[in-house]
Amino acid sequence: MQRFPEYLLAGYRSFMAGRYTAERDRYVELADHGQQPHTLLIACCDSRAAPEIIFNSSPGELFVVRNVANLIPPYAPDGSHHATSAAIEYAIQVLKVANVVIMGHGRCGGIQAALSPSFTPLSDGDFIGDWMGLLKPAAEQIQTSSLLTAGERQTALERVSIRNSVNNLRSFPFVREREKAGEVHIHGAWFDISSGELWVMDGDSGDFIRPQV
Amino acid sequence: MQRFPEYLLAGYRSFMAGRYTAERDRYVELADHGQQPHTLLIACCDSRAAPEIIFNSSPGELFVVRNVANLIPPYAPDGSHHATSAAIEYAIQVLKVANVVIMGHGRCGGIQAALSPSFTPLSDGDFIGDWMGLLKPAAEQIQTSSLLTAGERQTALERVSIRNSVNNLRSFPFVREREKAGEVHIHGAWFDISSGELWVMDGDSGDFIRPQV
Amino acid sequence: MQRFPEYLLAGYRSFMAGRYTAERDRYVELADHGQQPHTLLIACCDSRAAPEIIFNSSPGELFVVRNVANLIPPYAPDGSHHATSAAIEYAIQVLKVANVVIMGHGRCGGIQAALSPSFTPLSDGDFIGDWMGLLKPAAEQIQTSSLLTAGERQTALERVSIRNSVNNLRSFPFVREREKAGEVHIHGAWFDISSGELWVMDGDSGDFIRPQV
Amino acid sequence: MQRFPEYLLAGYRSFMAGRYTAERDRYVELADHGQQPHTLLIACCDSRAAPEIIFNSSPGELFVVRNVANLIPPYAPDGSHHATSAAIEYAIQVLKVANVVIMGHGRCGGIQAALSPSFTPLSDGDFIGDWMGLLKPAAEQIQTSSLLTAGERQTALERVSIRNSVNNLRSFPFVREREKAGEVHIHGAWFDISSGELWVMDGDSGDFIRPQV
Repeated sequence: MQRFPEYLLAGYRSFMAGRYTAERDRYVELADHGQQPHTLLIACCDSRAAPEIIFNSSPGELFVVRNVANLIPPYAPDGSHHATSAAIEYAIQVLKVANVVIMGHGRCGGIQAALSPSFTPLSDGDFIGDWMGLLKPAAEQIQTSSLLTAGERQTALERVSIRNSVNNLRSFPFVREREKAGEVHIHGAWFDISSGELWVMDGDSGDFIRPQV
Repeated sequence: MQRFPEYLLAGYRSFMAGRYTAERDRYVELADHGQQPHTLLIACCDSRAAPEIIFNSSPGELFVVRNVANLIPPYAPDGSHHATSAAIEYAIQVLKVANVVIMGHGRCGGIQAALSPSFTPLSDGDFIGDWMGLLKPAAEQIQTSSLLTAGERQTALERVSIRNSVNNLRSFPFVREREKAGEVHIHGAWFDISSGELWVMDGDSGDFIRPQV
Repeated sequence: MQRFPEYLLAGYRSFMAGRYTAERDRYVELADHGQQPHTLLIACCDSRAAPEIIFNSSPGELFVVRNVANLIPPYAPDGSHHATSAAIEYAIQVLKVANVVIMGHGRCGGIQAALSPSFTPLSDGDFIGDWMGLLKPAAEQIQTSSLLTAGERQTALERVSIRNSVNNLRSFPFVREREKAGEVHIHGAWFDISSGELWVMDGDSGDFIRPQV
Repeated sequence: MQRFPEYLLAGYRSFMAGRYTAERDRYVELADHGQQPHTLLIACCDSRAAPEIIFNSSPGELFVVRNVANLIPPYAPDGSHHATSAAIEYAIQVLKVANVVIMGHGRCGGIQAALSPSFTPLSDGDFIGDWMGLLKPAAEQIQTSSLLTAGERQTALERVSIRNSVNNLRSFPFVREREKAGEVHIHGAWFDISSGELWVMDGDSGDFIRPQV
């Protein structure tokens, strides 16, 4: 029989001996009474930007969606299978989270693919091409900014994409209502993998700035 | 201006003073040379089952998709926006991960919704209803198991769903080829939030068993 | 003359030199004053799941019925020879035990036979077929759960069977009365031969959970 | 929720810390490869005469039926639910045990009931009365032995009953065939709770004698 990867089991042993043992009561409590996360966090799949690590969060705090490039598609109640929209609906309507954070990060492979002038489909299905197509108009505009360096275009699209997702999130009627009622707050964030810097989006201007931490 | 949540900033301060400071070289290295995660991990959004915590993993190890109930849809190259399929394509074709782990967990809200005989849409869009529709045939069969308790039906569907996702994953031609060539290995896992137990799927029988850790 | 098996005599010598010598007073006392076991335990004949070993119990503690698959038939005062019902009557009415425990276990051969789609009688008498017929409706329902693995169907029926026996036990008027008066308590348990895990039945939901031991 | 009895959990803890830990490999092996007990042992439910304790046996050695007064009913393939016959069929036909041991013991409550001249049913169902009815002709004859003391009559019926069960066992065609072929051996034994003495039945004469141990 195929073995479960040993390095994952080794990590699990560390978890059980360490964190689980220390937080056992919390886990039992969370199992018995259910989760009440304060925040829906939409992040990228990237292995270098795990939200629970960056925010040093405890079990039960963050309800986390992770897709390539942390995208939120626009509201589209068309009966097909929408992974991200389903998670948003559950977080807002059932868990009633107080915050939604869309967190992008530097050196994002999905954003890089979206900006690549010579992008070739990664498989016959071209799933990345279709998925990053959500950013197509933005990517096309950024690509014409010939005065920006490649790195600047990448960072620019990473941040444009977060603002785009914020707008798409507001296209969901139940999000808009809850935000209007002051029951949910929407935030953008951007993480620099190399320096560890966290930048947060100014809700008024859309600028990304370094919070006083 | 709307403030970024203070508890997230407090967590970020802890991260910077602790883990980032300790692992700065690793972060810089990962930023400079890109990620090479060994594992694609498909997990649930649930705030109580973060993969990086359960496997005590370091930055750069796990490429993580999180959607409600850790579902993988079947291969459907239809040009629409498939969050999960795009992440799988990227992990297999670009990152060339050696392992894929589909991790479910106990007390999953999505699974509970799928089994609820009186489920009412959570919004006009009914996104959770449509998303969990991926499990509809399985849920309908499990619902008829009247001799099982509600808890047993829930655990049963949580595990059936993992096997279902394994099968769907194999419907992607590029996954099938890589697996046949012995270049990628597919695993199932199930986490018990209360006890912290990890159960892994026997690849032959599909049974979930406790690994010797 | 046919010899009594040597390995049983060897085991008996160990008993006399060890446990009997250590507990001689207890044996004499139990012989002089009769047994007053606290618990009626209904277990399977399986050689791997002896109650006195699993509960490390002393002589005089457990009144033990063992039949294939630890079944309790429904109350049937029809004048025929009911091994299990007779033991229950004696334990409740004469010994006045405070607890009844029905203990099943994993990999039960009787349950396996009940689930086997191609079961052929083991002899002309078909005694196993008739005995496991007590579980026929349950076995038939579980057999239709095609999404469960063979192992999962087996575990499911092992546990359904315990709940079934609990229900049948309550069909005995004298049990029902004693339970209603708070004088006897009914419990279910399930033992995993491989891991040694003991799971106990939640009296309210019927779920099997691991007790905090 | 009703608690599982604490003294049973305490005993289970001792088992896990002691015997299970010491014999873990054996338990895993027995789970993986199935049981192959050498002996079918038919004993009484009495809390003072557990076979695994008296023969100091290890997991996997004894397939154990326990009913009141260790009775074997005669072969009766009538389609009703025969607990003891089913266990015999399984042990002989599936497990192919090499030995069958019928073990009685002193101060047996069932035998005492069978001999009681003023026995009143223990419940409306009179299950003990019906079950011990298997010994009725023998009990009636012993009751007339007015020269024997009450204690002698009790011991006499305990032993007559074992010989009776040996005869009934041989009424099963598949047992008779296997015995004739030399593949199974049938033994009687009687345990004295007070002194710990084991007496075994001489297969030729039917006498109970103390083996050289």
